[in-house]
Amino acid sequence: MPYVNIRVTREGVTPEQKRQLIEGATRLLVDVLGKNPATTVVVIDEVEMENWGVGGIPVDERRRNRP
Amino acid sequence: MPYVNIRVTREGVTPEQKRQLIEGATRLLVDVLGKNPATTVVVIDEVEMENWGVGGIPVDERRRNRP
Amino acid sequence: MPYVNIRVTREGVTPEQKRQLIEGATRLLVDVLGKNPATTVVVIDEVEMENWGVGGIPVDERRRNRP
Amino acid sequence: MPYVNIRVTREGVTPEQKRQLIEGATRLLVDVLGKNPATTVVVIDEVEMENWGVGGIPVDERRRNRP
Amino acid sequence: MPYVNIRVTREGVTPEQKRQLIEGATRLLVDVLGKNPATTVVVIDEVEMENWGVGGIPVDERRRNRP
Amino acid sequence: MPYVNIRVTREGVTPEQKRQLIEGATRLLVDVLGKNPATTVVVIDEVEMENWGVGGIPVDERRRNRP
Repeated sequence: MPYVNIRVTREGVTPEQKRQLIEGATRLLVDVLGKNPATTVVVIDEVEMENWGVGGIPVDERRRNRP
Repeated sequence: MPYVNIRVTREGVTPEQKRQLIEGATRLLVDVLGKNPATTVVVIDEVEMENWGVGGIPVDERRRNRP
Repeated sequence: MPYVNIRVTREGVTPEQKRQLIEGATRLLVDVLGKNPATTVVVIDEVEMENWGVGGIPVDERRRNRP
Repeated sequence: MPYVNIRVTREGVTPEQKRQLIEGATRLLVDVLGKNPATTVVVIDEVEMENWGVGGIPVDERRRNRP
Repeated sequence: MPYVNIRVTREGVTPEQKRQLIEGATRLLVDVLGKNPATTVVVIDEVEMENWGVGGIPVDERRRNRP
Repeated sequence: MPYVNIRVTREGVTPEQKRQLIEGATRLLVDVLGKNPATTVVVIDEVEMENWGVGGIPVDERRRNRP
């Protein structure tokens, strides 16, 4: 029954990578806590780079200033 | 003042269905807890099917394999 | 497969009220979107009143000032 | 290390406004709690107006009915 | 910079298991997406069983009825 | 109508600091986006240090190893 929410910047995550994130997060809950994979939910949120900030600066701006 | 977040897969939820979800969730908080509807917030997140996993598998893949 | 998160202030919500919130939110998703109740997850978060703010003021302070 | 999630309706928030939200939220955590800005994360979610409800009514409908 | 939120029912998760969840989720983001582990945040929420519902029923009630 | 969720480690945040976070986050939304403070909600989540990981390690363990 666990719920896992993975939030990353939107920058070309492929369907295969999403599949691996979902599979890996589910297996983690099974391996560590013995949870039932059938009821483990994983939701991936892809967030625009201008909407994600670290160090007080949007990620897209950080990238431009660090060539 | 309650905050309700409803997360579903993005597959053609209509504006009328969203209206019903918002109305129903608000009424639920009013009926069960006596909350003030004027300050009850409901936010619906529609998530791409390749971003939602159950049983370790993305929902879009599950659907393809279960004809 | 929907995921519903209900956040309310912590002020004596009873187990019976929680049961009603869980049942009502699940039925809402079934009725409006035809979702499968068996995989509908509802999580209630109870938040301390000093941790919840509206109008720029913590809820516990609002209550004290409005006799 | 704080994580701040700002959810607003999607109605033309500009990149400059997002920059200000990220900078302001980060500075708030630094000023009030002495947190390290380098590891403070701010994520802005823009939500379609038909997906956001207050008072049991979607925001876009509220706006139409209040000229 | 990813943010991972793992929500499970509160039923005796040990510090060592939490360590493994944090380590495993971080490694997953590094392995699949090449993310920087130093800025990957993992937050575990433990939710009371009476606050978590599946199938329209609180988890604690489900457990009692399935001996 | 914005919703702001501030998540920090639980380590003695005082009611006065919470008041400042709520006031500051609300004012930020008013100043930058012109939002109505009366319907701006701020929720602070305090997370146990063993439940929060950065760099693949729980925060409480990081602290012990960095005297």
